[in-house]
Amino acid sequence: MQEQKIPYKIYLQENEIPKQWYNMRADMKNKPAPLLNPGTLKPMTAEELAPVFCEELVAQELNNTDAYIDIPEEIQNFYKMYRPSPLIRAYFLEKALDTPAKIYYKFEGNNTSGSHKLNSAIAQAYYAKKQGLKGVTTETGAGQWGTALSMACSYFGLDCKVFMVKVSYEQKPFRREVMRTYGASVTPSPSETTQIGKKILAEHPGTTGSLGCAISEAVEVAVGSEGYRYVLGSVLNQVLLHQSVIGLETKAALDKYGIKPDMIIGCAGGGSNLGGLIAPFMGEKLRGEADYRIIAVEPASCPSFTRGKYAYDFCDTGMVCPLAKMYTLGSSFIPSANHAGGLRYHGMSSTLSQLYHDGFMEAVSVEQTSVFEAAEQFARVEGILPAPESSHAIRVAINEALKCKETGEEKTIVFGLTGTGYFDMVAYEKFHDGLMTDQIPTDEELEKSLSALPNVPEN
Amino acid sequence: MQEQKIPYKIYLQENEIPKQWYNMRADMKNKPAPLLNPGTLKPMTAEELAPVFCEELVAQELNNTDAYIDIPEEIQNFYKMYRPSPLIRAYFLEKALDTPAKIYYKFEGNNTSGSHKLNSAIAQAYYAKKQGLKGVTTETGAGQWGTALSMACSYFGLDCKVFMVKVSYEQKPFRREVMRTYGASVTPSPSETTQIGKKILAEHPGTTGSLGCAISEAVEVAVGSEGYRYVLGSVLNQVLLHQSVIGLETKAALDKYGIKPDMIIGCAGGGSNLGGLIAPFMGEKLRGEADYRIIAVEPASCPSFTRGKYAYDFCDTGMVCPLAKMYTLGSSFIPSANHAGGLRYHGMSSTLSQLYHDGFMEAVSVEQTSVFEAAEQFARVEGILPAPESSHAIRVAINEALKCKETGEEKTIVFGLTGTGYFDMVAYEKFHDGLMTDQIPTDEELEKSLSALPNVPEN
Repeated sequence: MQEQKIPYKIYLQENEIPKQWYNMRADMKNKPAPLLNPGTLKPMTAEELAPVFCEELVAQELNNTDAYIDIPEEIQNFYKMYRPSPLIRAYFLEKALDTPAKIYYKFEGNNTSGSHKLNSAIAQAYYAKKQGLKGVTTETGAGQWGTALSMACSYFGLDCKVFMVKVSYEQKPFRREVMRTYGASVTPSPSETTQIGKKILAEHPGTTGSLGCAISEAVEVAVGSEGYRYVLGSVLNQVLLHQSVIGLETKAALDKYGIKPDMIIGCAGGGSNLGGLIAPFMGEKLRGEADYRIIAVEPASCPSFTRGKYAYDFCDTGMVCPLAKMYTLGSSFIPSANHAGGLRYHGMSSTLSQLYHDGFMEAVSVEQTSVFEAAEQFARVEGILPAPESSHAIRVAINEALKCKETGEEKTIVFGLTGTGYFDMVAYEKFHDGLMTDQIPTDEELEKSLSALPNVPEN
Repeated sequence: MQEQKIPYKIYLQENEIPKQWYNMRADMKNKPAPLLNPGTLKPMTAEELAPVFCEELVAQELNNTDAYIDIPEEIQNFYKMYRPSPLIRAYFLEKALDTPAKIYYKFEGNNTSGSHKLNSAIAQAYYAKKQGLKGVTTETGAGQWGTALSMACSYFGLDCKVFMVKVSYEQKPFRREVMRTYGASVTPSPSETTQIGKKILAEHPGTTGSLGCAISEAVEVAVGSEGYRYVLGSVLNQVLLHQSVIGLETKAALDKYGIKPDMIIGCAGGGSNLGGLIAPFMGEKLRGEADYRIIAVEPASCPSFTRGKYAYDFCDTGMVCPLAKMYTLGSSFIPSANHAGGLRYHGMSSTLSQLYHDGFMEAVSVEQTSVFEAAEQFARVEGILPAPESSHAIRVAINEALKCKETGEEKTIVFGLTGTGYFDMVAYEKFHDGLMTDQIPTDEELEKSLSALPNVPEN
């Protein structure tokens, strides 16, 4: 049987690491809605974005036409430090579930940032360096993005200023320390170091912070400092572009063994992992060359796809960023403090939002106790302790595999295992001690946060 | 140039994972001294060891003659979960050091235990299961071994009782939580659950524990519980045997590219990693087929090779274990509480002790501030955050590479990167804050701990 020949781990060769990123937007008939200037409500131009983002990244952000973009050699070189990442056949999990389904996962956690975030961090740091900048600013929630960026900046000798959501800063001192190891400065957000931070602290004393607020602070510092720009680890088109390396490697590994997946499952917060994982598969789907079920999994505590509104909204709490059209819960939405891990952004990538709106993908939300059950089951049989974020995809992959057990179908399931959970043991402890609860916003809460959407006329 | 063709990461194929372990003792002219019964001072027999250790493991412990031992298929199968591990060419580090040396490291940290310990844990759990046992007991210091064993026991459905040195239990709640994720019970040692624990607590109230003490407790519980045996993650011959998979993979990867190392460097606590890494190279050396510099690196705060005595000693604080002939600091020796990470055992593998005594290897001790300097430098250029233990080897590898820079020699250096430091950020934080100090025992302290060696006549 050919089946027998598929190894547990499929590693591509070093020279098979993609040399171009794939840009889904080129193949989309309905392009994602443009970022709007919050003052004029006109699409943001490259000139308007230049004070915030690096030039080349602005070009990538606005590029809806080129399907392939060359990966600069310096980035290819860095990728060799931790790529190709393995595509793993979940033989142990299949056996434990006693399912006829064939399960594969692309594991992006085998690097010190502990997640896929490094794929875009190194690209953004490279373009900042190329532009002759001194440094970059950013925000981080769970800490993976901040860690990834600190590694990338260390590599290129750039200064790296990270605003870390205060609750994470306090709960995850080890994450902070990893960033310091790579030379980054880490400030808990909201902070007294920015105007917007001071304002938020004055209005909400004792706040534990949010991603939207940390973004505002990071943008303020970038715009106000000579030689600095702001970089973001998710949501943006450019990030999805860089992350396409995940999907391209996944597809190359599957193609090597003649495997065609029936469904591709990824967790979705801002969309960086999901957009990267599905990219080449979605490309085939958009071009009518193949069909796949593509499933976004989000937390029930932050359900932008499944309970949000598809509309223009502010990207940050301070409303200093451009407006984006996306599935959103409203920029004032903050998931319960009891929600563990990342996937807590109020909005969703504009590209993925358009694809979802146009019916090219499904979305499902899952509750965190069921997510940690799946995480523990997975850890015990596959030997990898997954991040809470990644475990959302595990939950749905297991659900789908169990459906196959019912029906006897030998479906091929591919999911993204974005990272490891070594810095999330506080949440695991809660789960073990039976103290974890599900945190689902009420309709009233969502109505309230959605009531403050900016007024943008449909065009 | 052939040189250009060596990839950053050399992965063997799955079918190239070793199918036999290599037993250095078979090729040693002077065999390691046998374990002695502390009462009779006669070599321990298989019958005497059977109440403590699993049968098959006793046979391996006493086997000084078979050079190769088949790896059971179930263990080979589990190895596929996380092996082969990569042999990495440290191109980035070489460039940063501007050295003509060629540096390679075998990275054993890409699994949830975070270290090489899983290689022996799965073997020991397998033999316990095969013998029809209910469970196993063990001790853990820094936590890698306990984590590895909990993973292995979860895989085979065995109960796993871990005695964790109290200071680690308190400083590393996350390690504890990972073990719980895999279903292990974790008890801080010394504890009130054993006779020896009670005795030690009565004599030394407020003690933060030691490995020797935790061993005594774990042995007591194993011997006193129906269907339990004790397992140990280092020091023993059987452990070095299992760990030979590291060296065998390393050599196979080097052979593929025709690379012959000039020196092999490993950190040494009880000797499990070092003994595994060097095994096939030492084999060639013992058989006179090749020559290599083999360098053990130990902490200046626990310098058994470089300042200890080669003599019979107790393996544990409670003196319930057999006597072993080894380089030892005395069984009452406890490294300073300011010493970070593992490598804190008072003795050293009998096999490695004999080899060192016979001049087949060198040993060097390094101070922890210099170790963390090397760790941080390595992390920044190679992208992997190393464990403090592993960083001892990094320190000496960098030192040797810098010597090559002086002399212009293009030496080939291979070192073992045993694990990752994600659970050691407290130590990194101390280092960043300038609060880390070197902890070197005085001659008087060593004299004192060495004064209580058991009186065993030379035979």
